[in-house]
Amino acid sequence: MAAVSPLAPERFPDLAPIAGVRLAAYAAGVRYAGRDDLMVAELVPGSEIAGVFTRSRMPGHPVTWCRQCLPGGKVRAIIVNSGNSNVFTGRAGWQVVEATAATAAGLFGCEPSDIFISSTGVIGEPPPPDKIVAALPSAAQALSAEAWEQAARAIMTTDTFPKGSTATATIDGATVRLNGFAKGSGMIAPDMATMLAYVFTDAALPAAVLQPLLSAATKPSFNSITVDSDTSTSDTVLLCATQQARHAPIANSDDPRLDDFRRALETLMIDLATQIVRDGEGAEKFITIEVSGAENDDAARRIGLSIGNSPLVKTAIAAGDANWGRIVMAVGKAGERADRDLLSVSVGGTLIAAQGGPIPGYDEGPVAEHMKGRYITMGIDIGIGAGRATVWTCDLTHGYVDINGSYRS
Amino acid sequence: MAAVSPLAPERFPDLAPIAGVRLAAYAAGVRYAGRDDLMVAELVPGSEIAGVFTRSRMPGHPVTWCRQCLPGGKVRAIIVNSGNSNVFTGRAGWQVVEATAATAAGLFGCEPSDIFISSTGVIGEPPPPDKIVAALPSAAQALSAEAWEQAARAIMTTDTFPKGSTATATIDGATVRLNGFAKGSGMIAPDMATMLAYVFTDAALPAAVLQPLLSAATKPSFNSITVDSDTSTSDTVLLCATQQARHAPIANSDDPRLDDFRRALETLMIDLATQIVRDGEGAEKFITIEVSGAENDDAARRIGLSIGNSPLVKTAIAAGDANWGRIVMAVGKAGERADRDLLSVSVGGTLIAAQGGPIPGYDEGPVAEHMKGRYITMGIDIGIGAGRATVWTCDLTHGYVDINGSYRS
Repeated sequence: MAAVSPLAPERFPDLAPIAGVRLAAYAAGVRYAGRDDLMVAELVPGSEIAGVFTRSRMPGHPVTWCRQCLPGGKVRAIIVNSGNSNVFTGRAGWQVVEATAATAAGLFGCEPSDIFISSTGVIGEPPPPDKIVAALPSAAQALSAEAWEQAARAIMTTDTFPKGSTATATIDGATVRLNGFAKGSGMIAPDMATMLAYVFTDAALPAAVLQPLLSAATKPSFNSITVDSDTSTSDTVLLCATQQARHAPIANSDDPRLDDFRRALETLMIDLATQIVRDGEGAEKFITIEVSGAENDDAARRIGLSIGNSPLVKTAIAAGDANWGRIVMAVGKAGERADRDLLSVSVGGTLIAAQGGPIPGYDEGPVAEHMKGRYITMGIDIGIGAGRATVWTCDLTHGYVDINGSYRS
Repeated sequence: MAAVSPLAPERFPDLAPIAGVRLAAYAAGVRYAGRDDLMVAELVPGSEIAGVFTRSRMPGHPVTWCRQCLPGGKVRAIIVNSGNSNVFTGRAGWQVVEATAATAAGLFGCEPSDIFISSTGVIGEPPPPDKIVAALPSAAQALSAEAWEQAARAIMTTDTFPKGSTATATIDGATVRLNGFAKGSGMIAPDMATMLAYVFTDAALPAAVLQPLLSAATKPSFNSITVDSDTSTSDTVLLCATQQARHAPIANSDDPRLDDFRRALETLMIDLATQIVRDGEGAEKFITIEVSGAENDDAARRIGLSIGNSPLVKTAIAAGDANWGRIVMAVGKAGERADRDLLSVSVGGTLIAAQGGPIPGYDEGPVAEHMKGRYITMGIDIGIGAGRATVWTCDLTHGYVDINGSYRS
């Protein structure tokens, strides 16, 4: 197991119980020995769910399953295994999904379509047919309202630390809680990466309200991070609401009484997303890319991701080199509207280049100092509009090459 | 200087003289010490030219200059320096371009717009204002019909070997010759990368015929290679015809009498393009990706490039791991039409996966053996159409991270 990322938070946050949610972690032996690799989250009957999934044309069986279940909007349990992604595993893989859902439905007394499933790990090897099914009864016995960190640990693959976040919000005078955890480290790119995230709240919001809230919050969070530009076949973000909070019914996601909840959800999801970047495979530096002045917000995000995905930018930062010429290159290749003579680039708050060339007399000293740190910021102003976005990524190091040359073997 | 790539051809090919072309290499001292960094190609009056350039929104000054000159279709000289790309260098950089063209026009007795200019090297530092201009008269003195390899060496940056190719073709019964040389090693991606290529022929073809021939040949050659997905600000491919061959005038690029020339040009450009991949920064393995069965040829090429740009695929190959699950992932993220259950993947000629899963009883032995070699082939059949493309790339190694962490400093 790799050492913990130098960018990891000091510790897993304290996640208080959420009424209607119980969790368990269990060592099912899918692939890893001596660690939990099965996570079960049980939700009280009546819980509602929203989801967003990978846009890959080669989605894993669990993603296909969840997509089938989502229109119902109901959830009784989420089952996640690590070690095997159950992607491109043919009929045998699909049977594992069906058997898992049927067994869990029996345990929890619900329909199989109330069981949501995710899998993460190696692609293309059918998962062992019986391990998950055999482990479910014991895992269900172990359910507790406190097992947040254990749950976050059970879904890890190449992750070096578990990722959790918590927030509270006020809806119509009532306080609701949000807890979330996530995994992800490589194959992380926009449009969701090998990235699983589960967010739970006691809010009394129906699926029809949850879904637009989740979709909107995904763009500035999970769709604004990149580790390596590779998009996974398994990406899944689920938002579950147990309906246990006491507030007036809300039927529309645009309701202003949801403003604080919307803010809390987005903040929590950005926290989880940036934790994934902090655990980027081989990452030594955390990079924040602020793009302004683009044609619109989407253009700004695409320019930010073009910079964040550039191997040349990322290797330069790994070496502590403020190679702003490569930033200009990455803006140029993004395909969005830009004008060389209006662009400006700053690193660590120091303006380096503007009006088509380097700033006369620009002093590299403070920038060189900034580049030695763990946290690198860059600001790119396109100079043609009001579009803004923030994108997060990490550097490209020897560690990335090592990890990905040995992951499967 | 890095060691020569293990994928380099054994030697620079013999390039016979082309009537109407003389070349010189010269040490102008733009940035490098003790090596040639200025290339001058002189073409006989009446020579015609075609060009394709980077699609970057941040093109270098020399690209802007060439685009201005191209509509004239005439060329008397090409001036290329290495060590400084003259990109994002403001007014000072533009003045260097103008002074270079004016000085060369005086030397060769032509209009400045008959002088084509390229620069390659570091971005964002204005080139020294007088070095190129001062060197031009001496370089012009040294022009010779034989200096092809010296010319190819003078334009190198991080390249570890000079890249040349030659071909002959028959046009209407007359034999014409094509010679070309190129540079490129990193910042190599579709739509032209930090890649300069110059092709010369004695064919008697006007610019209006050369341009469509060049544009068509660029797609299966320079636009079908990738090293690191980063697109340069300076990419330039020029095709010059000295009109010295004796064959009937041809006014249309679709003329069947050009079939053999078209084939020779495409073959030569693919040879140069794949030499660039063989010199990919840090490359240890040369990867050929054959995509078939896609919706159309462009879709096949985009799928091939999605695989060829995937850091996860490239690091796995660096480690000798036939991680075909990552190939499936990269097909999935390409955004082109695909169906999991119709896709098939083979590596080194061995079918590994089809019909949505691994081939039952698939023997990894021959594939593992293939993966140990320098030359990796993979075949991906999408199974839904007749679109085909071949894409070439290299593996992603520690060498790439090293080279790009130290290039500027």
